This record gives sequence, C-alpha cells and structure tokens, in this order.
Amino acid sequence: MARTVFLVSDRTGITIETLAHTLLTQFGAVHHKTISLPFIDTEKKVVAVVRRINEAADRDPESPVVFSSIVEPELRDALRVCKGLVLDMFDIYLPLMEKGLAVRSEQAVGRAHAIDDISRYESRVDAINFTLSHDDGADTRRLQAADVILLGVSRSGKTPTCLYLALHYGVRAANYPLTEDDMDRGGLPDFLVPYRKQLFGLTITPERLQRIRTERRPDSRYASLAQCQKEVRWAETLFRQKKIPSIDTTTISIEEIAVSILHKFGLSRESY
Amino acid sequence: MARTVFLVSDRTGITIETLAHTLLTQFGAVHHKTISLPFIDTEKKVVAVVRRINEAADRDPESPVVFSSIVEPELRDALRVCKGLVLDMFDIYLPLMEKGLAVRSEQAVGRAHAIDDISRYESRVDAINFTLSHDDGADTRRLQAADVILLGVSRSGKTPTCLYLALHYGVRAANYPLTEDDMDRGGLPDFLVPYRKQLFGLTITPERLQRIRTERRPDSRYASLAQCQKEVRWAETLFRQKKIPSIDTTTISIEEIAVSILHKFGLSRESY
Repeated sequence: MARTVFLVSDRTGITIETLAHTLLTQFGAVHHKTISLPFIDTEKKVVAVVRRINEAADRDPESPVVFSSIVEPELRDALRVCKGLVLDMFDIYLPLMEKGLAVRSEQAVGRAHAIDDISRYESRVDAINFTLSHDDGADTRRLQAADVILLGVSRSGKTPTCLYLALHYGVRAANYPLTEDDMDRGGLPDFLVPYRKQLFGLTITPERLQRIRTERRPDSRYASLAQCQKEVRWAETLFRQKKIPSIDTTTISIEEIAVSILHKFGLSRESY
Repeated sequence: MARTVFLVSDRTGITIETLAHTLLTQFGAVHHKTISLPFIDTEKKVVAVVRRINEAADRDPESPVVFSSIVEPELRDALRVCKGLVLDMFDIYLPLMEKGLAVRSEQAVGRAHAIDDISRYESRVDAINFTLSHDDGADTRRLQAADVILLGVSRSGKTPTCLYLALHYGVRAANYPLTEDDMDRGGLPDFLVPYRKQLFGLTITPERLQRIRTERRPDSRYASLAQCQKEVRWAETLFRQKKIPSIDTTTISIEEIAVSILHKFGLSRESY
C-alpha cells in the first residue's frame, strides 16, 4: 500500500470513519491502508499516535493522511505536529459554522454517541426486541405494532434490513418470507391483509438470488436458477397486484434499502 | 424551533447525518429541527429542495443550515443558490485532499454504500445470522466460530451490542446471559471455559439496571434494587476472578460499547 490513512478520534471514531470512507471513495486511484485509532483522549495517547504517523511517513512511499475528529483544542494542537496531512474535522467545519450561525461552539468531548436519556435508549431497544421476535414470520400476533413489514423470498435481504432499521432508526420492522406455500395458496397470507399499509416488498434478480443461495446450499433445488426465477416472478406479481411498494435489492446495500424504506413511508428518522 | 437544518444527499445521507449530528452537538445552544432529504439526484429534485430551504428561510427566525454530500458538480451548483448556509462536504474537503494527495478526485456518485462484491456481502450476512442464532445463549454448539462472546446479567446491553457488531463490522458475536442458575452453580458455565479468550463482560450500575428492568417489569423481584445489586456484584466478581475484560455500559451508547470491544480484541474493523 502506497499510503496510510489514519482515522483518529477521542471517542468511537464512527463519524470520522464514515466521513473518511465517503471522501476516499472519490479517490479510487489512491491505494491506501486504513488504521482506526479510537479513544485518543489524552496527551500521552496523542503523542503515541504522532509517533505511529511519523513512522508511516518515513516508511511509506506516499505521505500519510490523518482524518481527525478530536474535540479538545490542546489535543488537536498536539496531533497537528505530525508528518502527515491532517484533516481535522472541527478545524475545517467549526469556523464555517460559527460564522454562519453567529454562535460560538462548545468544543466538548463525547457528545455525539452518548446515551441521552433512558426512555430514548429503551425505545431503541424495544424496536430491536420487536424486530427480533418478528423475524422471518416468527410471531404474527403483534403485527399491528409494526412500523413496517417486509415481504420477500428467502435471501432477498429482509433480516439485515429489519435489524438495520431497528438499530439505527428505532423502527419496529417485522418481516415475512414468501414461500412456495404462499404461492400454492395463491396470494398474501390472510393475517397480513389488515396490514396492507405497512407492507413493503424486497425483490432481487433471479441471477443474484441464485448466487446468494448457492453460497448457502450449493446444487440444491432451492438455489437453482429455475426455482429463483419462479419465486421472484411470483413475488413481483404479488407486489404489483396488491399495490405493495417494493425495491430491487440486487445492487444496493443494506443501508440503502433501509433508507429507501424510511423515505417511502415518511418515517421520522430518529437517528442513533 | 429557531432554525431548520437540512441534510441533503444524493444517496442514503448516512454520512452527512452522522457528520452533521456530531458537528451540531458542539452547538448545544442552537435550537434546530433537522430534515433529512436523501436520494436528491436530479436537477428537478434539487430545485424542489431549494424551494423548501427558501421557505424555511422566509419562515424561521434564523437562517437555515444545509449540510450537503451531493457529489455531482452541476447539482451542487444548483443547490448553492438557496437562501441558507450551505456546507457542502465535497466543496470543503476535496480541494484540501486533492492538494494533499496530489491526485484529482473523481466526483462519482454512490460510491460509499454500494455493494462491493458478493462475498463481502455474504460474510456480513453470515455474521448477522451467526449472531441471531447465538443470542441469549440460544445455541452453544458453534461457539468456537465466535469472534466474541458477551457475558452479562439480563438487560445489560448484550443483544443490541452483538447486533451492532455483526451489522457494522461483520463480527460474529454470541452472547450468554448470566442468571441466578449460574450464580447457584458458582461460576462460569462449563461449556464457556474453552472460550475464555473470546469472553467479554458487560456490567452496569445496579441503579441503572433497576430503572431499565422496571420499564419492562415494574414492581417485580427481577427489577428490585436488591436483586440488581446481587446480580451485578456477582457478575463483576466473576469477571475479576476469571480475568474476563469488561466494560461498564451505564453511561455509554451501543456504538461506544461495540467499538470498545473491537478495540480491546484488536479485531479488524471491516466497516460496512
């Protein structure tokens, strides 16, 4: 790797990782290795980080890049002396914001991912528990409490999407797998009919579904292209006939599916 | 609310939400309402966004703030004409990075959260499935495949933390609830002994545990302070005796617990 990218933060580093990742994807040609250094919250730790950065500067053909979200001004000063390109998130944004908002910032550590209050924490955990107990059609009784109910054939991405919705947005997300039994019965299971407004379909191309299922059960009927085609075609017809909004998950990530669903339902995004 | 903050992006908006949230926590005094506008990827949609921003500018006592992560230069230009303070992430960072890296950026849309390849997607989904089937001591057979095994009393935060680890970092995270049965037996369950290196304890103050349990089962023995004290004290003694690293989850978020665990185990952070 030609260059080392350091992600330095005084807490989890989640913000700076997300930001750096997005920015670096705009430099496809830059070959780099990323090193995350969270919880850098003392002078001593910053000095150790500076040493690591300087070692990379001496070793690598290209100069290191340092994304930092450290808040404390003294620690930021101590980091700035390293032999790397330091992109300090607060240095970059706070002056622009202070000017625009005409308010001074507080430069206080650990605000972003701290627990705010117990009821907020509880409602997030409730959403997670609801989602776990309504995964894969497991519990069909308390469906009236669901914010969304995802439908799709096996391996179309329902479970990861539901968990993401619960964990990140406190959304109570149930899911129900469309199977051959439903095909044989010819429609939406009866118990789902009252919840038409909460339903959302996930679809996928038969080719991708075949590849995903093959990883799991190679050479099975379940993973055969014919079976995938049959199930997907049926599910898509169902979504169309019942006017269930749906999304094709073939080329998009769990994050994108989740945000598309929130967007579609106009659910408020209580972001955690 | 004195001010409206718009989070505008051409894809999910996850990056800009995280960034804006972190930055805004540094301005505790600024009362604002946040509006997320994802998937703003055409000129027409940008024009509609500009209209909304201008309405807020005319209505609110304070001028709107617009955090944007739109990539396409033409769309960014179209957004810039609004009557708000536009903080365009790429405008702000790319020139600094291009100069520092001596490379031109590509300004291509949708790089950050796109699906890269099927095996990467599969290993993430595998971690989620592993974690689901090893929640709450459910399956104790395939524990040798676990990257971490969380231990803690009921409601100490094990399940959300495991799911976060799986979903975000592709970590296979099992968990086992320490109960009175374990207390009666006086130690670590036998089947966990071979996995000492993967064990990690979650602890919590009895007072907070009492509050969390009370939300769930008010006036129960389970939620009584005496019971919480007894369980927590026993769990902490166990962690100490068996030299199991642990963390106090009382005042930290799921994100912070997860990152602390990764950090402790030196697990590579395959960030999704």
